[in-house]
Amino acid sequence: MRMDPQELLSLCKRRGFLWPAYDIYGSVAGLYDYGPLGAALKNNIEDHWRRLYVQGEGFQEISCPIVAPEPVFKASGHVDAFSDMYVECTKCGETFRADHLAAGLHANPASLGEDELGKMLRESGVLCPECGGGLTAPKRFNLMFKTSIGAGRGKTAYLRPETAQGMFVNFSQVYRYGREKLPVGAVQIGRAFRNEISPRQGLIRLRELNMMEAELFVHPEDKSWPKFRDVRAEVVPLVPNKGPPSSVALEEAVKAGVIRNEVLAYFMWLTYKFALDIGLDPKRLRFRQHESTEMAHYASDCWDLEAEIGYGWTELVGVADRGCFDVKAHLDHSGADLTSFERYDEPREVEMEVVKPNFGALGPLFKDKSKLIAEALSKLPAEAAKDQDKVTVDVEGEALVVPSSCYEVSKRKEKVSGRKLVPHVIEPSYGVDRLLFSLLDHVYSKKDEYIVLRLKGLVAPIKVGVFPLMARDGLGEIATSIFDSLVKAGIAAYYDDSGSIGRRYARMDEIGTPCCVTVDYDTKSDGTVTVRDRDSAEQVRVKKEEVAEVVKALISGASFESLRSPQD
Amino acid sequence: MRMDPQELLSLCKRRGFLWPAYDIYGSVAGLYDYGPLGAALKNNIEDHWRRLYVQGEGFQEISCPIVAPEPVFKASGHVDAFSDMYVECTKCGETFRADHLAAGLHANPASLGEDELGKMLRESGVLCPECGGGLTAPKRFNLMFKTSIGAGRGKTAYLRPETAQGMFVNFSQVYRYGREKLPVGAVQIGRAFRNEISPRQGLIRLRELNMMEAELFVHPEDKSWPKFRDVRAEVVPLVPNKGPPSSVALEEAVKAGVIRNEVLAYFMWLTYKFALDIGLDPKRLRFRQHESTEMAHYASDCWDLEAEIGYGWTELVGVADRGCFDVKAHLDHSGADLTSFERYDEPREVEMEVVKPNFGALGPLFKDKSKLIAEALSKLPAEAAKDQDKVTVDVEGEALVVPSSCYEVSKRKEKVSGRKLVPHVIEPSYGVDRLLFSLLDHVYSKKDEYIVLRLKGLVAPIKVGVFPLMARDGLGEIATSIFDSLVKAGIAAYYDDSGSIGRRYARMDEIGTPCCVTVDYDTKSDGTVTVRDRDSAEQVRVKKEEVAEVVKALISGASFESLRSPQD
Repeated sequence: MRMDPQELLSLCKRRGFLWPAYDIYGSVAGLYDYGPLGAALKNNIEDHWRRLYVQGEGFQEISCPIVAPEPVFKASGHVDAFSDMYVECTKCGETFRADHLAAGLHANPASLGEDELGKMLRESGVLCPECGGGLTAPKRFNLMFKTSIGAGRGKTAYLRPETAQGMFVNFSQVYRYGREKLPVGAVQIGRAFRNEISPRQGLIRLRELNMMEAELFVHPEDKSWPKFRDVRAEVVPLVPNKGPPSSVALEEAVKAGVIRNEVLAYFMWLTYKFALDIGLDPKRLRFRQHESTEMAHYASDCWDLEAEIGYGWTELVGVADRGCFDVKAHLDHSGADLTSFERYDEPREVEMEVVKPNFGALGPLFKDKSKLIAEALSKLPAEAAKDQDKVTVDVEGEALVVPSSCYEVSKRKEKVSGRKLVPHVIEPSYGVDRLLFSLLDHVYSKKDEYIVLRLKGLVAPIKVGVFPLMARDGLGEIATSIFDSLVKAGIAAYYDDSGSIGRRYARMDEIGTPCCVTVDYDTKSDGTVTVRDRDSAEQVRVKKEEVAEVVKALISGASFESLRSPQD
Repeated sequence: MRMDPQELLSLCKRRGFLWPAYDIYGSVAGLYDYGPLGAALKNNIEDHWRRLYVQGEGFQEISCPIVAPEPVFKASGHVDAFSDMYVECTKCGETFRADHLAAGLHANPASLGEDELGKMLRESGVLCPECGGGLTAPKRFNLMFKTSIGAGRGKTAYLRPETAQGMFVNFSQVYRYGREKLPVGAVQIGRAFRNEISPRQGLIRLRELNMMEAELFVHPEDKSWPKFRDVRAEVVPLVPNKGPPSSVALEEAVKAGVIRNEVLAYFMWLTYKFALDIGLDPKRLRFRQHESTEMAHYASDCWDLEAEIGYGWTELVGVADRGCFDVKAHLDHSGADLTSFERYDEPREVEMEVVKPNFGALGPLFKDKSKLIAEALSKLPAEAAKDQDKVTVDVEGEALVVPSSCYEVSKRKEKVSGRKLVPHVIEPSYGVDRLLFSLLDHVYSKKDEYIVLRLKGLVAPIKVGVFPLMARDGLGEIATSIFDSLVKAGIAAYYDDSGSIGRRYARMDEIGTPCCVTVDYDTKSDGTVTVRDRDSAEQVRVKKEEVAEVVKALISGASFESLRSPQD
């Protein structure tokens, strides 16, 4: 049975996971605050991801600005193509996604032009869903937040709609830091912004979101991956765009061409492992391959990790082979040399076409500029000069037209030590907010009328509750000192001495705290405390000096059973 | 001798701490990327701060959006007052801070109006510093980046210029999560944006910055702090706004009224401890008290932690008592009840003035609306009605004017269980980028011609370098397995097998790596490796199985000496 998202959002608000942002000013759709529990859960999810990608796989973590000047997104294609169509109610002023209003009228309304879509809405008599008013014709709206840098005329700028571009524009820096070898990868964890027309669905469609993105730069002709050997027998649930869903070993999927290459398959596996590590339910996860019509034109393969939650199957992560598109786009737009250099084992002799200046013809025509023009000609790529009757060269800022009599294109054998390559990009792109919300959906459960979040110790915002049975008789002091020792050991603990023990357990269960420690009168006599397991509600007694160690073991995944000494 | 900031920036760029952002598109002043080393250093600084504030002091970490609708910054005062004046060169189009160009012409040019300042610049014949062109008259420029939320008309919005407002607008949520007790505090670590007119000075004046801010909500009449007892004898270097610099115990400074209250003094101490923990040089740190003219009008006391760096004395942290200003501003603008409730030990009898409706007069005048008007009148604060000849009340959305004949203001004794209070705010506000850059300035040193960053293990981006003396003879395999064990233990390590050992040490010294481990031929016979200390260049041999433990001890602050076994 699917969970009601409103029920989950209500728990989140009540207990401090999420608050609608700017609530005292009427709030803004698509903007949320993470309260103390949400922020801790988010930090824990991000830390684990960093552990896998930065420590585990050696990606370089970098941190780029959110505000970027227009040329960056001109190159990336976002200025021209990152848009949706909207209509506005002429009566109440509300705006709507035009394609959403046409759902049911056409198989893929987002693929239509403004005119076509407008005609369809008009002819179908679609009105404002809020007030029944008339609607304007559809208009395109760029989904980037626009701003301006600097006073006076200023420079047009945008808030990044993804963190990826910061890594693409820095390819050369990343490559150099990685000592000029491929593959090399960078990651970013941070905010991204999408000025959605009418966001709904809580954390699923946000105007300000948190992303974790990895960009792996690989040799365009070598998408093998040595560590793939270690995971080739692993099985992940696949929904390919051709043929039936399958659960086969990754190696088979690659061999059959269902997954395009090893490196893509490896990062699909890492994504799946990450999802299970943080506690998503494997029975409600799948990798769906993009339809060829749905795939960005440059991507050669793309798989979404989807989770089944209250809103239906929802994309959490995209793992794509983006080919050379991104780096090439910035290379073309900026003119910077965003290539890697492949050094051959042995220098190779290659036949090249080169432009050779003809000094006899240059001299009379260009006089004392001949030498500089000859230099400029020698640097021209042969394709630019071949079969042309003239070329234009730049000499000291001046554009000079040089007739073909002044040069010839000839073949020459040369020893070259390697070649320049534009790297391909494999991109695993994670939506933190969607992961967090889907995780809460998957761990939400009820025991009688009480809510229990079955969060794993790895990600739980509070790892342990500490309670004195009574605040009096010195029990409070003992509990406080246990609490202090846990904090000192770096364990997120919560002290609670109010209400019945049952109520205190219920409060901790509701926010996903894996275990609780209670100090009672026996503690004073034998120095032991009760440790209670959230999921089984079982209890064991342990020495109070061992509490930090026991909690650490439980967080790291030790079973509660393993705590029992043989005589229990 | 002061460090040349350009020399430091050059190291930062070369080694991957910092890159000018969007460099391939010509870069943008005031925007930097953190490369892999900078991002790791920044994460380590932030993690330690989180340890002190969240784990150590129990602040709630929350995470609010960067984009905020206009009313938030209308209330905070930023829309009206967060601005600088600029002039534009009529020839080259460059913009400049008008007050900066008037430096030397007036003691405090920023305090002048546009006209006055313009007159002064004109009469002094100030021209464009870049090209000597003429300058426009000064204009005010709001320093917030402006944008718009949503399609169609959209809502005016800004990028937050500080993280603080997110915590003020959420006071009620934070208070409730803290179980409705004062003091209660929240923190945020995140980006803030200031559209500076012409940023210079690298990381010191950024358009996009990283902040760590804490907002402690306290009882307006009780600024004591129990934990102050533990630090009252501590000494921090003070430069008060009256009298000479002093280094006295905090307790004395509070008693003498130099520091306004205990809680402010405590957080100044915590700030100082934090600065020393991460490795700033105590000889180049001081707390400077704001001049009364410099202090925001609402602040009752404010101290800046300043560091002496290449740019001179530079503000890194501000610790301020902001009184009730912030919460009151949002209470007034939003109408939300942003108060705390102080419950008395015993209910108290108080004499209150209340508005009493006069039904005899209301009935004939207002007919069937009388009852609703009477209710509205009873809810009016007495001050609003007293000595007025009429009041306006809102009844079902209608504003009704009610003459004073329809009510009277009378005194009544009531038992009340407590009172509502608008909390005061103590704010420690940290600039992460300035802390990071100042830290690099303070730890930068030279040994012969080599650069050594004397970063502490706590914050160093790489904790240990791992080198095989030779890649051959199986030394590479041993070194790799040590490297893998370090990574598995969560220690940031760097593997290097190229170049001479001396050069590898130098590379690690230059990025502040505290120690290096070298595998040599003795490792094969006796299983020991060399551990070398960065600062003393001393070496000891330890068993290869103990490397992770030894490195962990060094990071946690153990002295290199303590590693020596007695027979060494």
